[in-house]
Amino acid sequence: MLMAELSARSGVPVATVKYYLRAGLLHPGVATSATRASYDGSHVQRLRLIRALVDLAGLSLGDVRTVLTAVDDESVSMHDAMGSAHGLLSAGARPPTSARDRVDRLVETWGWQVATGSCNRAGLAAAIAALDGVEHVLSDETLHRYASSMHDVAETDLDTVPADDRQAAVRTAVVGTILVEPVLTALRRMAQEDVSARRFGA
Amino acid sequence: MLMAELSARSGVPVATVKYYLRAGLLHPGVATSATRASYDGSHVQRLRLIRALVDLAGLSLGDVRTVLTAVDDESVSMHDAMGSAHGLLSAGARPPTSARDRVDRLVETWGWQVATGSCNRAGLAAAIAALDGVEHVLSDETLHRYASSMHDVAETDLDTVPADDRQAAVRTAVVGTILVEPVLTALRRMAQEDVSARRFGA
Repeated sequence: MLMAELSARSGVPVATVKYYLRAGLLHPGVATSATRASYDGSHVQRLRLIRALVDLAGLSLGDVRTVLTAVDDESVSMHDAMGSAHGLLSAGARPPTSARDRVDRLVETWGWQVATGSCNRAGLAAAIAALDGVEHVLSDETLHRYASSMHDVAETDLDTVPADDRQAAVRTAVVGTILVEPVLTALRRMAQEDVSARRFGA
Repeated sequence: MLMAELSARSGVPVATVKYYLRAGLLHPGVATSATRASYDGSHVQRLRLIRALVDLAGLSLGDVRTVLTAVDDESVSMHDAMGSAHGLLSAGARPPTSARDRVDRLVETWGWQVATGSCNRAGLAAAIAALDGVEHVLSDETLHRYASSMHDVAETDLDTVPADDRQAAVRTAVVGTILVEPVLTALRRMAQEDVSARRFGA
């Protein structure tokens, strides 16, 4: 396909596609004349991943490059490639110490494989600290039950990731992590309504 | 306790407490002189609920009054009292039709007790439509698995609600629904890291 169709199919403006080509984020098409090149499905896929990283995850182009480098480097495991994107998603979290210690203990208890320096630990610690701050303290048992449910969610999440396509895997991980969140939130509120109706309904 | 201590213990400024008293959102204390009154734990609890509704849920004072009226009216079931707050939390969602139909079918299949006009149905429909919009379509099976996990979460949520105290129940429901969300988000990302490490790690 020509540039115009690539732009139409990916939803990315021509000028932006050209910018990505110049920046080396998108691989060149096959030249068909001095001024024209032909593109294929791999270009559409690449553009969709870049847009997910930029529009949804709000990454800078520098961060996008970091993720793409991990995606393209076959010596990096699929896990680390998805982690390179994930790590950048959660960069804003601040780590308070007592909550942080509690998270470390819990991860140990649960036997989860979460890197010691993972920003996800800090993210959980920050969320727990926010609850402590309004005196809404979660017991270890409650946290454990939440953890177990969210581990089931993560199994479902990972089942939707295509294991044979690194690029699609990273896009699915980013889109799924961010855009499935409102689905889970809505399901939780609906389920609360159901459980509340069963327990407390007239 | 006197007004100054009530303000200190609830974290609500004296002028704001006086405003809530005049507006009838907070019940009067016992007058101990022409200019002084004595307050107790029930006033602290009430102020904490009002602050959760205002600060966390962002409700207007009119909406706060609606929730408090439902809380105070013993002829309203606990379920409907919590629902009065919940309904106001989700008021922003817009309902697209095909996604809406899909949600209605699923609720039927799952056998959940969710009111036909519940804004939670619209919330889920909007979240599903947003995913459709980026061609990240969730299969019925995937949605069903998410629903099952979030129903477990809701059971845990409701277990933390004190069934014998309507006011504390509504506060817990509001605080828990909003502030536990980041905990679940963080747990999901940690669990994804764990599942990804087990499946795709080097």
